[in-house]
Amino acid sequence: MSEAAQTLDGWYCLHDFRTVDWTTWKMLSSDERQAAIHEYLGLVEKWSAAQERKEGSHALYTIVGQKADFMMMILRPTMEALNEIETEFNKTKLAEFTTPAHSYVSVVELSNYLPADEDPYQNPQVQARLYPILPKTKHVCFYPMDKRRQGNDNWYMLPMEERRSLMRSHGMIGRQYAGIVKQVITGSVGFDDYEWGVTLFADEVLQFKKLVYEMRFDEVSARYGEFGAFFVGNLLEEEKIEQFLHVN
Amino acid sequence: MSEAAQTLDGWYCLHDFRTVDWTTWKMLSSDERQAAIHEYLGLVEKWSAAQERKEGSHALYTIVGQKADFMMMILRPTMEALNEIETEFNKTKLAEFTTPAHSYVSVVELSNYLPADEDPYQNPQVQARLYPILPKTKHVCFYPMDKRRQGNDNWYMLPMEERRSLMRSHGMIGRQYAGIVKQVITGSVGFDDYEWGVTLFADEVLQFKKLVYEMRFDEVSARYGEFGAFFVGNLLEEEKIEQFLHVN
Amino acid sequence: MSEAAQTLDGWYCLHDFRTVDWTTWKMLSSDERQAAIHEYLGLVEKWSAAQERKEGSHALYTIVGQKADFMMMILRPTMEALNEIETEFNKTKLAEFTTPAHSYVSVVELSNYLPADEDPYQNPQVQARLYPILPKTKHVCFYPMDKRRQGNDNWYMLPMEERRSLMRSHGMIGRQYAGIVKQVITGSVGFDDYEWGVTLFADEVLQFKKLVYEMRFDEVSARYGEFGAFFVGNLLEEEKIEQFLHVN
Amino acid sequence: MSEAAQTLDGWYCLHDFRTVDWTTWKMLSSDERQAAIHEYLGLVEKWSAAQERKEGSHALYTIVGQKADFMMMILRPTMEALNEIETEFNKTKLAEFTTPAHSYVSVVELSNYLPADEDPYQNPQVQARLYPILPKTKHVCFYPMDKRRQGNDNWYMLPMEERRSLMRSHGMIGRQYAGIVKQVITGSVGFDDYEWGVTLFADEVLQFKKLVYEMRFDEVSARYGEFGAFFVGNLLEEEKIEQFLHVN
Amino acid sequence: MSEAAQTLDGWYCLHDFRTVDWTTWKMLSSDERQAAIHEYLGLVEKWSAAQERKEGSHALYTIVGQKADFMMMILRPTMEALNEIETEFNKTKLAEFTTPAHSYVSVVELSNYLPADEDPYQNPQVQARLYPILPKTKHVCFYPMDKRRQGNDNWYMLPMEERRSLMRSHGMIGRQYAGIVKQVITGSVGFDDYEWGVTLFADEVLQFKKLVYEMRFDEVSARYGEFGAFFVGNLLEEEKIEQFLHVN
Repeated sequence: MSEAAQTLDGWYCLHDFRTVDWTTWKMLSSDERQAAIHEYLGLVEKWSAAQERKEGSHALYTIVGQKADFMMMILRPTMEALNEIETEFNKTKLAEFTTPAHSYVSVVELSNYLPADEDPYQNPQVQARLYPILPKTKHVCFYPMDKRRQGNDNWYMLPMEERRSLMRSHGMIGRQYAGIVKQVITGSVGFDDYEWGVTLFADEVLQFKKLVYEMRFDEVSARYGEFGAFFVGNLLEEEKIEQFLHVN
Repeated sequence: MSEAAQTLDGWYCLHDFRTVDWTTWKMLSSDERQAAIHEYLGLVEKWSAAQERKEGSHALYTIVGQKADFMMMILRPTMEALNEIETEFNKTKLAEFTTPAHSYVSVVELSNYLPADEDPYQNPQVQARLYPILPKTKHVCFYPMDKRRQGNDNWYMLPMEERRSLMRSHGMIGRQYAGIVKQVITGSVGFDDYEWGVTLFADEVLQFKKLVYEMRFDEVSARYGEFGAFFVGNLLEEEKIEQFLHVN
Repeated sequence: MSEAAQTLDGWYCLHDFRTVDWTTWKMLSSDERQAAIHEYLGLVEKWSAAQERKEGSHALYTIVGQKADFMMMILRPTMEALNEIETEFNKTKLAEFTTPAHSYVSVVELSNYLPADEDPYQNPQVQARLYPILPKTKHVCFYPMDKRRQGNDNWYMLPMEERRSLMRSHGMIGRQYAGIVKQVITGSVGFDDYEWGVTLFADEVLQFKKLVYEMRFDEVSARYGEFGAFFVGNLLEEEKIEQFLHVN
Repeated sequence: MSEAAQTLDGWYCLHDFRTVDWTTWKMLSSDERQAAIHEYLGLVEKWSAAQERKEGSHALYTIVGQKADFMMMILRPTMEALNEIETEFNKTKLAEFTTPAHSYVSVVELSNYLPADEDPYQNPQVQARLYPILPKTKHVCFYPMDKRRQGNDNWYMLPMEERRSLMRSHGMIGRQYAGIVKQVITGSVGFDDYEWGVTLFADEVLQFKKLVYEMRFDEVSARYGEFGAFFVGNLLEEEKIEQFLHVN
Repeated sequence: MSEAAQTLDGWYCLHDFRTVDWTTWKMLSSDERQAAIHEYLGLVEKWSAAQERKEGSHALYTIVGQKADFMMMILRPTMEALNEIETEFNKTKLAEFTTPAHSYVSVVELSNYLPADEDPYQNPQVQARLYPILPKTKHVCFYPMDKRRQGNDNWYMLPMEERRSLMRSHGMIGRQYAGIVKQVITGSVGFDDYEWGVTLFADEVLQFKKLVYEMRFDEVSARYGEFGAFFVGNLLEEEKIEQFLHVN
């Protein structure tokens, strides 16, 4: 048996994708729509207050194409807190005019392939990555992924030393994008259908393509990566929500 | 032909996942909702009475993410009893406001890879595992799985001795989690689309990820495991059902 | 080119799985429901009369889990007759309160891997198997299957002699269950998405799991079997239909 | 690079499968239903007139099982003409009571694996096959297929000579069914998800199973065939349409 | 690690496929339909004006078969602009009578396998291909594709030199269709589920089949191509929109 990599785990994470039912939304009176938006903005305000208190973080993006209309990415210290936020949203007026499009349940994760002398959870840099305040970049990219277990391309049968060395060179690519693309890796083994979720943040949307494409030539992705659906979106600032939902 | 492993089989098991239709649920009057909840609590009470009499067991959990809103896991001595419970629920008022999200049909199973001198069904420890009272841990994790039959990675073509030895080392991982994660393995060959269902119970949700991830490096999972969808949830205590279903 | 196995073919077969829409069903008045049940029982009576005349056979089972609520398995001498029964059901009142869940189109088939000196269609034992009156066992199990054509595991590239020998030992497992599990094999090449449908009948539901699991270790299944969805159910006797559909 | 086989291409082809919504259909008054049927028969009459003029052909079949209720197979000289017929049907009253179940877009194709000295399009036998008047056999069978490109089983990497020889022996099977099963092969590379559609016509439905099963043992299918969903149906003669759609 | 191919990237691209709900569309009064069409034509006019100003381009095609009724292909300089157009359409009256059928998000891409001495973005020919005004050919064909990463057929593990040479000979096929089929390649790594989208434009629809089929025998497609769903359609000229949507 190969030795399992040790992970560090931070906040729990829910990616919640929704499609707006514009037809029924337009059937509401302007006042009813205003009330629904107001109620939703109240929720977002609560999330912002939690973020201020460093008790979680969130990000709102509209999604391009028919896969969804918008995405709420929520980080919280417990799985129960995620569940409550999800249910609270489901009970809002606005939720009556959205349909679930996709969701993903995971936990912020750092792969600990490096030798650890100190308690990593006490390290401020590690803390900042395990409990991140999500950036407000112009664009987001989300996709889930697995490490392949297929014939001769079986990641989980490789010796730890080989996986560590492969991941090191893989990580080098990511580091070339430092300051350009911010990656939040979340682990989902036991929580959702893939093993990891990858959320990328950037101000230049083309950098997502460059990064993912460059990585695909790296052996870790080329031989061992299995990818799920990709979602790409644009920042939905709180002050733009009303405009986004505005209909005549 | 390889020799088939002998199994011990206990209670039949239905995992029943449901999504709440909050929009129509809110259309009911408060009294109507109260009546629907009351009727549902009556069902749960009957299940609890059956559990008291050791004629079955059940567990209720809310599910995180859009795959479902809640899950009822039901154990009963016969397939007919499961079917009756399912139909009884389907005829309730509450069921009108839920949609089926997923289900799984199986039977509690112990793999008998160990030599048996005595009648295992008379062994109290075995009985406790075949007819388990489900624990009320804070979290649940469910997923179905197959043993792979693919090219050189064909579990069913391995000699019994090799499977036994692989399973023994695989079981060692599970045993390290004794007292931390309780596993209920249910067999579903001939009953549902995968060969087994795995239901994990723990108070610390991160332990699901640790256990499943550690096992994935073990040859039994790494080479021979095929996994279906994963569901993760939080305990829904009976006294919290009303609050969970409360809307304004 | 490998030589194709000769088959004997009997009655055409439709497995028709339905889900009840309990919500709209409850909206009917008690009289309307009674009339719909009455009309449906009239259909079943006609089927029973056909069965009496040895012009076909049928079986009704409720299905456990969310895949379907009940299943009608219908045998008839022609594809047209199956189509008429299906359309006749679709036009009933009851059908308005069911949604199609799954179906399978096939023909009762005997593999003729044994040398044949006589005309098998004149053999009374063969006739009884090609035109079977379906048993009223307590449980049913249905699944479709293919023989694999994948890399080195390609059934259709094996020489006839090897297939015959593999099938002989495979058939031995089935024969051990004689009197315990009755198998009806139906061929669906050119009729539906898999190559065969397997319908098992037994009074003890656990025997389905034992049989299918034991067979899975046999090379025919282990290397060459590809399985579709599994359905398991409980006998729905005609005199229980009303009770099954009864709502308050 | 392997040399591509040359093809001869005739009429464009749309297979259009529909499911009848019997519940809403029954809600119409008898007069409204009559009018809808009348309008639809008018369409079919136009198609028959086009067929008379050799400007296309069509076939109507009811489909067995839940995949669809009926199928319209339409041949026309241009893709635009197919699109117009489809849209014209979509705008009819009857279409309001059907839901799309499946469709397939292709073009009648003859594989030209034989050396060609003359212009094949001038050959009357070739013309009859490229612009066929569809037969009114009692049964139809439709399925799409690909040639496999997988590991060592990659059709498109075989030298032309080998493909030609394999196809020749494959074609021999089909020829044994001359006068029993009529095959219409349509190419769909660039038009739909598989590479070919196969439509079989026969008066004896069992012959579909015999033909497809026998072919499966031929190396072309055994090693290189990938098959999609199978549909089987019964002739829906124009004078039976009213009866098929008749409800009380 | 293999070296990643450099790409040149132009306008962002949304393929937006829609199905018309003819049943509810017919429920509108003629005036309401007229107003909805008028509003939609206003949108298209705005797109045409943007195209005039070289700030994007668009193409409208009806789609053959049930996959969709029509397709809007939109090119814009930013992902935000695509998102706005999509949302603006979603809020129109016409959108209430369409359902999303499929979409694809990508960016016009030129593979830069050739050595580059000059800044390619300054080259007028390159510019014309990165920011193309879409042609008004009679037909369109769209499909997404991946380069395979499977066992011995792993594109991303090939050395750059080999990929370059394979792509060169692959490109030769395309060049033979110069003036007959115009190809627009869009990259979607990080944006959507496949790695590329391929949109073909031609006046003769059969040329799509010839081109794609011929390419399939080239090693790049034969060994390394994985293809998604194919859509084929006919030009929907602006002055034909009203007729296309006309119902009695």
